[in-house]
Amino acid sequence: MENEKHHSTNGVRKPSNTKGKKMEVRIKILFTSICHTDLGAWHGENEAQRAYPRILGHEASGIVESVGEGVTDVTEGDYVVPIFNGECGECECCKCPKTNICTKFGVNPMKRVMAGDGTSRFTNKEGKPIFHFLNTSTFSEYTVVESACVVKIDSSISHGLKKMTLLSCGVSTGVGAAWNTANVQPGSKVAVFGLGAVGLAVAEGARARGASKIIGVDINPSKFSKGRAMGVTDFINPTELEKPVHEKIREMSKGGVDYSFECVGDLDVLREAFLSTHEGWGFTVVLGIHSTPKMLPIHPMELFDGRKITGSVFGGFKGKTQLPLFAQECTRGVVELDKFITHELPFDKINEAFQLLVDGESLRCVLHL
Amino acid sequence: MENEKHHSTNGVRKPSNTKGKKMEVRIKILFTSICHTDLGAWHGENEAQRAYPRILGHEASGIVESVGEGVTDVTEGDYVVPIFNGECGECECCKCPKTNICTKFGVNPMKRVMAGDGTSRFTNKEGKPIFHFLNTSTFSEYTVVESACVVKIDSSISHGLKKMTLLSCGVSTGVGAAWNTANVQPGSKVAVFGLGAVGLAVAEGARARGASKIIGVDINPSKFSKGRAMGVTDFINPTELEKPVHEKIREMSKGGVDYSFECVGDLDVLREAFLSTHEGWGFTVVLGIHSTPKMLPIHPMELFDGRKITGSVFGGFKGKTQLPLFAQECTRGVVELDKFITHELPFDKINEAFQLLVDGESLRCVLHL
Repeated sequence: MENEKHHSTNGVRKPSNTKGKKMEVRIKILFTSICHTDLGAWHGENEAQRAYPRILGHEASGIVESVGEGVTDVTEGDYVVPIFNGECGECECCKCPKTNICTKFGVNPMKRVMAGDGTSRFTNKEGKPIFHFLNTSTFSEYTVVESACVVKIDSSISHGLKKMTLLSCGVSTGVGAAWNTANVQPGSKVAVFGLGAVGLAVAEGARARGASKIIGVDINPSKFSKGRAMGVTDFINPTELEKPVHEKIREMSKGGVDYSFECVGDLDVLREAFLSTHEGWGFTVVLGIHSTPKMLPIHPMELFDGRKITGSVFGGFKGKTQLPLFAQECTRGVVELDKFITHELPFDKINEAFQLLVDGESLRCVLHL
Repeated sequence: MENEKHHSTNGVRKPSNTKGKKMEVRIKILFTSICHTDLGAWHGENEAQRAYPRILGHEASGIVESVGEGVTDVTEGDYVVPIFNGECGECECCKCPKTNICTKFGVNPMKRVMAGDGTSRFTNKEGKPIFHFLNTSTFSEYTVVESACVVKIDSSISHGLKKMTLLSCGVSTGVGAAWNTANVQPGSKVAVFGLGAVGLAVAEGARARGASKIIGVDINPSKFSKGRAMGVTDFINPTELEKPVHEKIREMSKGGVDYSFECVGDLDVLREAFLSTHEGWGFTVVLGIHSTPKMLPIHPMELFDGRKITGSVFGGFKGKTQLPLFAQECTRGVVELDKFITHELPFDKINEAFQLLVDGESLRCVLHL
């Protein structure tokens, strides 16, 4: 960020470096993709979180263009992925091995400006500010992120940078939920509710861990063929069932699965996921975004049946610490990222990419900048 | 159970041995005490669980009078404590180290007869059946329990049998919640909501583990002096507070406690307990009995703050496997059982003992038979 440069990108200028650059990193985005969270923010589903104009996008990969004062772990030319759930390394949570939540740079849909000076790094042609999104704002040729929100990718695997885009959010969220949050073991029985990219990444993570049974639940049967590639062994379409899903799953798994994952964001689905696990040790991981004002549909006495429920953010990965290792594992093929890239388009076809997601056609459409 | 004997006990005859004796143990009760669950059952608080006439009581110690066919782990003359949450050792849950729930003999307030033949072992003077309660029915000179629901106590510590009564329920439930369910560590910060016998046993367990801060919350200030003996370091009386309890606790513990325990059975208290823990790793253990039809007052998105909540039954102890070791630890003074015995009375003063509990006067009143 030594020189003030301006490149026009769809009417958005390259982020200014005139202020707030300490501990910040400017990234030239090479690839970005779209997640349902972008869709929700675009539609303004959560009123309190709306902020316009705003640059959406949080799943990407790119090259460090410049770094601000104090940034030591990445430098110009490094291949990186931005992360919406940062890791400052200094707060109580970052120091605690039990969580990947960062008090300072954790995921925060209300945040719209940089933490350093409370202003935006984007302006429109008239010089008016454009807000940031989820610590990242990757639908842009250049973006500025706090250094806590950028992860360096080993240069030896940089030829696969495009697929590393998926580590920014969806695949890390799903695989990590299976690995870190649930800790799926060889032989585990698993049920995944909702076979979008995140749900299928859960399945892929469970498959990689050696789960013996992976039951996929979705009302869209076209997801089943995609699911097989991710290791899903059994499918349930709730609309074709004459009994509650959890009863069917308990039958199929002799008393219930060890782990269930709610990747839909619906409370009825959440309850089915909760009840589909085995009494005594069943463990439900919630990944879906629940925009309802309603509370958990679980009675307190049901906690005494030994079923547990928890949420998972970014798959429990501490981004800066653990993602580089995960990237290596993906490169080794432990998790197969290619399967998640169903479409590729130039960045100016972004509306088409959104529609593919809305229609349930794509898992991830990678946009090339 | 070789001979048919009948002794009159307050109008209740000694259990008949005419049928259903396989895998059953007849115990001569020497000591029994009263827990809030007995009180709730006496009052018939939960309509579905009512069954009259019924012999209540589930916290006791005694001597094996005889054993039925197939019982090999206890024999006539052994000192034992009955357990309401049995351990058959053969079901999927018993084989799983993650849970102490037993599919066959777990705590079940609906159960009123023996599993073997579906009948009662108690009759009144007219020969009509009297129902069982919580696998134990200890308000009786003699009781019959399934062998899964009786734990042998090392004869070398049998001189302390009276205090082993407390291992049947209250103290095991509280200490075990701190040790097994939460796994409190040296230096942990803990909040206990409700300072009855169970809550104070949680505190005692946390003290024994070396917790650095144990915050006791109760609206009855007389509990505070009792609490100090159990290691409670700080007290909060919510009625004297001008802010929500969780805010006060977060202030006192620099962001929240590591573990909170709900020992009241009230949903508002449960929510305060949940919010009083630290984001990222806070862990709330529910021990209170919630008779409300209402669901958990926790929003699904709150699970993403990294706070966890779970229930704990019988302190997570697998009774037959782990309680003998816990008894030894109590004998060594790791946990001080004597502190929990605030009153002793002959068995025929049982109504007085109930009143002491209702009035919040006693922690445990041990009744001598």
